[in-house]
Amino acid sequence: MIPKKSIVHLPVYQPGKPVEEVKRELGLKEVIKLASNENPFGSSEHAKAAIQNEIANISIYPDGGSVQLTAAVAEYLEVNPNQIIFGAGSDEVILMLARAFLSPGDETIMADETFPQYKHNAEIEGATVIEVPLKEGTHDLPAILSKINERTKIVWICNPNNPSGTIVREDELAAFVREVPKHVLIVLDEAYYEYVTDEAYPNSLALLRDNNNVILLRTFSKIYGLASLRIGYGVGHPDVVRSINQVREPFNTTRFAQAAATASIKDIDFLNSCKERNAEGRIYLTEQFARLGLSHFEAHGNFVMVDVKLPSQQVFDGLLRRGIISRARWTYYPTHIRITVGSQAQNESFIKALEEVLSEAAVLG
Amino acid sequence: MIPKKSIVHLPVYQPGKPVEEVKRELGLKEVIKLASNENPFGSSEHAKAAIQNEIANISIYPDGGSVQLTAAVAEYLEVNPNQIIFGAGSDEVILMLARAFLSPGDETIMADETFPQYKHNAEIEGATVIEVPLKEGTHDLPAILSKINERTKIVWICNPNNPSGTIVREDELAAFVREVPKHVLIVLDEAYYEYVTDEAYPNSLALLRDNNNVILLRTFSKIYGLASLRIGYGVGHPDVVRSINQVREPFNTTRFAQAAATASIKDIDFLNSCKERNAEGRIYLTEQFARLGLSHFEAHGNFVMVDVKLPSQQVFDGLLRRGIISRARWTYYPTHIRITVGSQAQNESFIKALEEVLSEAAVLG
Repeated sequence: MIPKKSIVHLPVYQPGKPVEEVKRELGLKEVIKLASNENPFGSSEHAKAAIQNEIANISIYPDGGSVQLTAAVAEYLEVNPNQIIFGAGSDEVILMLARAFLSPGDETIMADETFPQYKHNAEIEGATVIEVPLKEGTHDLPAILSKINERTKIVWICNPNNPSGTIVREDELAAFVREVPKHVLIVLDEAYYEYVTDEAYPNSLALLRDNNNVILLRTFSKIYGLASLRIGYGVGHPDVVRSINQVREPFNTTRFAQAAATASIKDIDFLNSCKERNAEGRIYLTEQFARLGLSHFEAHGNFVMVDVKLPSQQVFDGLLRRGIISRARWTYYPTHIRITVGSQAQNESFIKALEEVLSEAAVLG
Repeated sequence: MIPKKSIVHLPVYQPGKPVEEVKRELGLKEVIKLASNENPFGSSEHAKAAIQNEIANISIYPDGGSVQLTAAVAEYLEVNPNQIIFGAGSDEVILMLARAFLSPGDETIMADETFPQYKHNAEIEGATVIEVPLKEGTHDLPAILSKINERTKIVWICNPNNPSGTIVREDELAAFVREVPKHVLIVLDEAYYEYVTDEAYPNSLALLRDNNNVILLRTFSKIYGLASLRIGYGVGHPDVVRSINQVREPFNTTRFAQAAATASIKDIDFLNSCKERNAEGRIYLTEQFARLGLSHFEAHGNFVMVDVKLPSQQVFDGLLRRGIISRARWTYYPTHIRITVGSQAQNESFIKALEEVLSEAAVLG
């Protein structure tokens, strides 16, 4: 009963407190969760209707091949169905990529403050993880390039980067992809793709067409508002997708997730409305941070990482007492918190609470 | 972009045809699927109501720790919450067990015709798979014991065995567990546990209490009728559960699955009713097989594996033309099909169709 050597040091997931418990403990009537980059505007009504319709099939296994959903997404992206793979969130696509491609002795490269599942899964596979520091919160592509060697299997680029929110620009990325040797898989994690309004953001589908070693990750958990259902996907070369399929569980996504995602991808109005309201909220938050004299990384997703000039746990605690759940305790950014862009009312409540917390600590004048 | 050596030979999952397509192709009004051991009586009404209630939370991540569901199952089984781990079906618990415990050079032992995910996942991890032939459709525990050595990490016992339907008896299993060295993890896959009516069936929870190296797998996909939602669990020693948690994705099950499972485990009436109707259906099918002169393995789950005395693909095709989907082409049983126990009407339709197919082939007099 001795587990693999590569896993014994890994942290065990500690469940966060349910919102109801936070309310009880702190005697709060309302708690606003701006911690997980969820969509404050819910989901498409068509997704909810699809779930209702699917209840009649509750006892029947899902379509293991996600045929309908694959067809809908392939049409939407103008790619072939054999270029798409679904996972229980893009988390599971990350798991499958690691499981299909990484072995002990292999190297894999990522930013030093980025989505933690790349490192977690690479370590389980016993691969050597090379972390390259962000430069002003942004992926340092030349430094990443310099770390690539014949043992490198996967490079992970989170764009926009979680948690910093910055993007890698089209010109930089195209040059990078040209330089990366073809034996290296470049994973472009675009979980927040749909939120980006900056024209410098890469057209990764075009990059994919010309480079077999590029795979994109996208998700229905963010702008589509289906985080509860666990559904995300990868888009890549058919050979890469085939390798991932070889390690995929036959029924890895639920019938409800497939139905809701199929309905969601067709609801362009909901998508556009969320994108617009998020951009407004992002502007509001960054203006308020400027007013408060707080610097932040350039934000392109539905969250902003702001330097609160205090140990982040202290600000987290102060916000929590006022009913706002944020994200703090970043390894490389001890005075930053990450805050999800909420509805306008939520954003205002957060700014009010933040101002109180900072005044209390005399950070503000 | 070279995948792991251990995965390149693995088969890619081929999606089955949707029932609607089968109907269209064969010009059938009704198709009865008795291929996947789904519950013909659906699910608890409480599960359906729980899904309705959860739609309001569609955009919110699930509770990663499944706290409520864990508490409900722990109470039901009278074990500690830290002994339980949930997966997207017990399939995912199998994946996590392999991922946490198996490395190249390790050995793992299973029956030669059993649930394919044990072998699939062990091969991905690069472990050496040792398959021990079933004896009259039943696990050969002495032969399995004889294969155990210092490299053995996991022994998989599917009880009732899928696809044969046979059980390992309490006395045999207790003796086996006593003999197995403590460094070997014994996985008792009890996906069909709730259907068994034979008193010789083991009380595995008692075995677990006395043996830290035993872990049980159970599921909500079968008698609870939640196959669409992907939710199953493992029950074992806290140290084993901790290791599995180290490789678990933070949000591996959906909000809907957790809610429906929590509601289902409390609906004892639905469980008992399904168990009773399944036992009646099982008796009906085995009596009909006797009448037709067909032998079958002793069936303890919600399916029967019967020797149709013809290449199984031929019978599968004949049944399909009559609107019945069965399971055929077993590696070690070329003339057997596996048929799910359906509702009484479904069972009668199946027997009528089978009789026609066999008469056509002149197997019957």
